[in-house]
Amino acid sequence: MSNRLSRQERLIILSQELIKRSGELISLDELAEKYKIARSTISEDLSLIREALEVWGRGEMQSSSGVGGGVRFVPVIGSEEAKNFLHNVKGRLEERGRVLPGGFLYTTDLLTHPGITSKIGEIFATIFNKVSPDVIVTMETKGIPAAIMTARYMGVPLVIIRRENRPTEGSTVSINYISGSTQKVQLMTLGRRALEGRERAIFIDDFLRGGGTVRGAIALLKEFNAQVVGVGIVILGSPGIKDAFSIPITPLFVLESIDETLSEAKVRISESICEFFGWKKED
Amino acid sequence: MSNRLSRQERLIILSQELIKRSGELISLDELAEKYKIARSTISEDLSLIREALEVWGRGEMQSSSGVGGGVRFVPVIGSEEAKNFLHNVKGRLEERGRVLPGGFLYTTDLLTHPGITSKIGEIFATIFNKVSPDVIVTMETKGIPAAIMTARYMGVPLVIIRRENRPTEGSTVSINYISGSTQKVQLMTLGRRALEGRERAIFIDDFLRGGGTVRGAIALLKEFNAQVVGVGIVILGSPGIKDAFSIPITPLFVLESIDETLSEAKVRISESICEFFGWKKED
Repeated sequence: MSNRLSRQERLIILSQELIKRSGELISLDELAEKYKIARSTISEDLSLIREALEVWGRGEMQSSSGVGGGVRFVPVIGSEEAKNFLHNVKGRLEERGRVLPGGFLYTTDLLTHPGITSKIGEIFATIFNKVSPDVIVTMETKGIPAAIMTARYMGVPLVIIRRENRPTEGSTVSINYISGSTQKVQLMTLGRRALEGRERAIFIDDFLRGGGTVRGAIALLKEFNAQVVGVGIVILGSPGIKDAFSIPITPLFVLESIDETLSEAKVRISESICEFFGWKKED
Repeated sequence: MSNRLSRQERLIILSQELIKRSGELISLDELAEKYKIARSTISEDLSLIREALEVWGRGEMQSSSGVGGGVRFVPVIGSEEAKNFLHNVKGRLEERGRVLPGGFLYTTDLLTHPGITSKIGEIFATIFNKVSPDVIVTMETKGIPAAIMTARYMGVPLVIIRRENRPTEGSTVSINYISGSTQKVQLMTLGRRALEGRERAIFIDDFLRGGGTVRGAIALLKEFNAQVVGVGIVILGSPGIKDAFSIPITPLFVLESIDETLSEAKVRISESICEFFGWKKED
């Protein structure tokens, strides 16, 4: 490892480090020691990076000065990048053959794809950045990849609500709820250690139809004195349900119709997203 | 958005883009068009980035030339960074109060922490890079965050084996297996669409005690003509079990002992990891 890094090299290495440690408060002293350069040089490098990222709408860099000074980087997705990405995923959701028996839309391949879930995380992080949540909450299983990516870009922990009691969670708090889509009573459980209490939480999930899961999650979090301050959903299955909640529901897509005979679905980018990025509503 | 990017700005933006799109083949034409600069300029920028990353042991950049030319970036974690990280996590695993009734070690907070799982993913990606898998496979729930991060750094899809049949997976293949730790017959199920067949898979999971889950996953993947070519485990609960498999098992940590009275565990960094990074075995 060479001791004399050129500015160009430093910019490359630091840029990657910021992305990898999104949301984390990184102290200038740590960086100075790690790269064996003066704090003032690190400061200058970070200013250059901040400018480039802000000009390109790639993120915000909050800095605190003084002895314990540091930077916290939160990536932001640009409007054009978000648009291309969402149109691309919409196309994939509308591919023929995705409709399963019972009228379910097959989304598992997309929701476990690292590139796709990572961009979904970036979009949710961009949207919920202003709300400053303390924690991201999701319900096992299919929403986990998008939720951990959101948590990562925001630099906050993820908490996973489970469908059954597991001995590896220690003592738990459980509630029953009625699943809106199946009308069956189901269990939701969360380890007592998962939350300290009073957290502001964003709930992220893959699909919302009846809203039972969201209502259950809100009730379960209330047991911890924690509060759901936002809900991010990848696909909203029933457009009307949004108004049944006092908390804003932010879906990326809305499922408009399902044709079981043709095995085709019609999907649109949600109004919430169009509004957020200032796009014209889809026609 | 300014049209004239300085080289410094380009290096910053491109460095971040490479990390975000790890494992993906990115075409030079796409980058040239996106940033409105000549292909040759992009090539020069990428060479500078490649050098900085390789000098600092931060990753490998494979490039293919010609009309369809592009780059594929695979991050690599440096030995010192891995060591600091693993010692830090070992410390957290040994914190008093982590031992639950029944002698279970509480790891959920660490395994859903975005910073920790992302580094675990980077380590597994560094280790399994040479094996060139087509897919990462995990079993719901607790291993998912580390598995999606591994998949992301390697640029391959993730596939999640589930414990129950869900209508949203379409037709599935299921097997029963005997859980090594509970000695109960359990179900493992995977959607037919999840794999095309003949994939080379790395199985990632949070904990291995009896080995039943790994054996089950191998059998289930065989049904798809897919093959498990490596196993990455965060914590190995029983050191001896490793030799019972013909496939190499790579744990990060080994659980040495549990003291229920003191609620304390003793954990060490595994020999596999020490060997891989060329560290002296822990004493």
